Amino acid sequence: MQEIFSKILKRREREILELETETQEQSLALEKSEPEAADRSYAHLLLGVLTVSDRCSQGLMVDTAGPAVTRLLRENLPDANFWAGLVRDDEGMIASTLRELSRKGAALILTVGGTGLGPRDRTPEATRQVIDREAPGLAEAMRAIGATQYPFSWLSRGIAGLAGKTIIVNLPGSERGATESLISILPLLQHGIEIAAGGQNHP
Amino acid sequence: MQEIFSKILKRREREILELETETQEQSLALEKSEPEAADRSYAHLLLGVLTVSDRCSQGLMVDTAGPAVTRLLRENLPDANFWAGLVRDDEGMIASTLRELSRKGAALILTVGGTGLGPRDRTPEATRQVIDREAPGLAEAMRAIGATQYPFSWLSRGIAGLAGKTIIVNLPGSERGATESLISILPLLQHGIEIAAGGQNHP
Amino acid sequence: MQEIFSKILKRREREILELETETQEQSLALEKSEPEAADRSYAHLLLGVLTVSDRCSQGLMVDTAGPAVTRLLRENLPDANFWAGLVRDDEGMIASTLRELSRKGAALILTVGGTGLGPRDRTPEATRQVIDREAPGLAEAMRAIGATQYPFSWLSRGIAGLAGKTIIVNLPGSERGATESLISILPLLQHGIEIAAGGQNHP
Repeated sequence: MQEIFSKILKRREREILELETETQEQSLALEKSEPEAADRSYAHLLLGVLTVSDRCSQGLMVDTAGPAVTRLLRENLPDANFWAGLVRDDEGMIASTLRELSRKGAALILTVGGTGLGPRDRTPEATRQVIDREAPGLAEAMRAIGATQYPFSWLSRGIAGLAGKTIIVNLPGSERGATESLISILPLLQHGIEIAAGGQNHP
Repeated sequence: MQEIFSKILKRREREILELETETQEQSLALEKSEPEAADRSYAHLLLGVLTVSDRCSQGLMVDTAGPAVTRLLRENLPDANFWAGLVRDDEGMIASTLRELSRKGAALILTVGGTGLGPRDRTPEATRQVIDREAPGLAEAMRAIGATQYPFSWLSRGIAGLAGKTIIVNLPGSERGATESLISILPLLQHGIEIAAGGQNHP
Repeated sequence: MQEIFSKILKRREREILELETETQEQSLALEKSEPEAADRSYAHLLLGVLTVSDRCSQGLMVDTAGPAVTRLLRENLPDANFWAGLVRDDEGMIASTLRELSRKGAALILTVGGTGLGPRDRTPEATRQVIDREAPGLAEAMRAIGATQYPFSWLSRGIAGLAGKTIIVNLPGSERGATESLISILPLLQHGIEIAAGGQNHP
């Protein structure tokens, strides 16, 4: 199992990684990437990627979707700080991780996985617990754009919304589904982050 | 009125049919089509079609949409067991019927009717009472695909989601609207039923 | 500030206008446009347009989107009565205005503004407080159709639904966004108003 973890660590190339097992209490090591409250700028944005997967968190599968999503974000927002984590499909644990990241000032959190129709898929329900305002168009866009290539995109139950100033978006769990969904809304997210932070004059 | 009932029964060609009137207590005769718990397979799936209509349940109109939906399902999933029923536009009655079908192990329930803007249309609200997880993409798909031919598809207020392992989808009430909506998501539903039942390894 | 108000009044060309400031208690002058309960017809429909904007309600900006929306409605439903108003981005105030207009018998209320990701944008949340039945397709249509020309349409968080027989729809706040969104669903609204009023036989 140690071997699998090293592989994951290699893939993530020095990204902050939290590994969680069923017995391990969750503890977010956000200190390094936390933006300084007094000096918040585009360059100091905190972006989080949270993989949700029973099998990956047990070490039975290697998470390739989460790292691919982080890589895509880094390429498009190179100056930001990144947090990446992994939890099992536990509604309470997903919700508390999202809440803590939002409290730490994350501008954007992308969840990866747990959006399907399977009995264990509860990422949208966890997200709904945390957001105070829904942004349904981001989820609609991912499905409608995705479905032009891959009709099963309509089966993703993902939602999107705001927890305070933090935008949270549920991506599907497959590497292809997660990255293509992200690509389809990336310009929206880049614009959305600025607006959510209050960076534009409100009419 | 007896005559109207016989016509409906003829149309449904030996499908299990529950007729309900305003004075009649609802009782679901599911025994014959219930899948055996120990031998659950694709062939023993229980699929339900619930027509929601004041006028049909009073015998003032013949329900053609519900039987057309059942026919379509039978053609595509010939080995399954079918339940078909009819209730008036009563939120509580719709919800309790959905709940009982789900408890009986239905893999899929399609409601037909009660999704419009009319004062009596409350099928989505009844459905929301019953589902524990929403699957917004199925409803979005029906509207977006339907609107390419028939723009008024956008007016359907239908939702979709899961009550445990039962997928519930609200179809519109017109025969054309109901069948075309179903056709647009049929491959999604066939795939979805397998996933919802836990038939695939969860990542 | 008086000057700005006169400019707005000129633009609205004799439309009934409610101006509200932070210190002013809201009072709806609906008496003139209220449909007579006993003689409700298409010609006596009450249609409301509520601009939601901090800056416009403070007189720091001139509202061009609200008047443009009202103009469009007048061109398409010339016989109706119109109410137009302006509130700041205050969830409680938006909700109470919507509730009062609905109680006065409005067939349709279009809100303009407050649907974005900004910290003050809460029009959808206010609307959700008031509606008893959601009509998600109207909001989906505005975003999906709008996005074909202007991808940022997906960022609008607007919702739509019914408060009793009153259809409420959230339009975005820019003049172009508001009018193009309205144009994309105008035939749906004209049809929807009739259905919501119970004007068609319910199946």
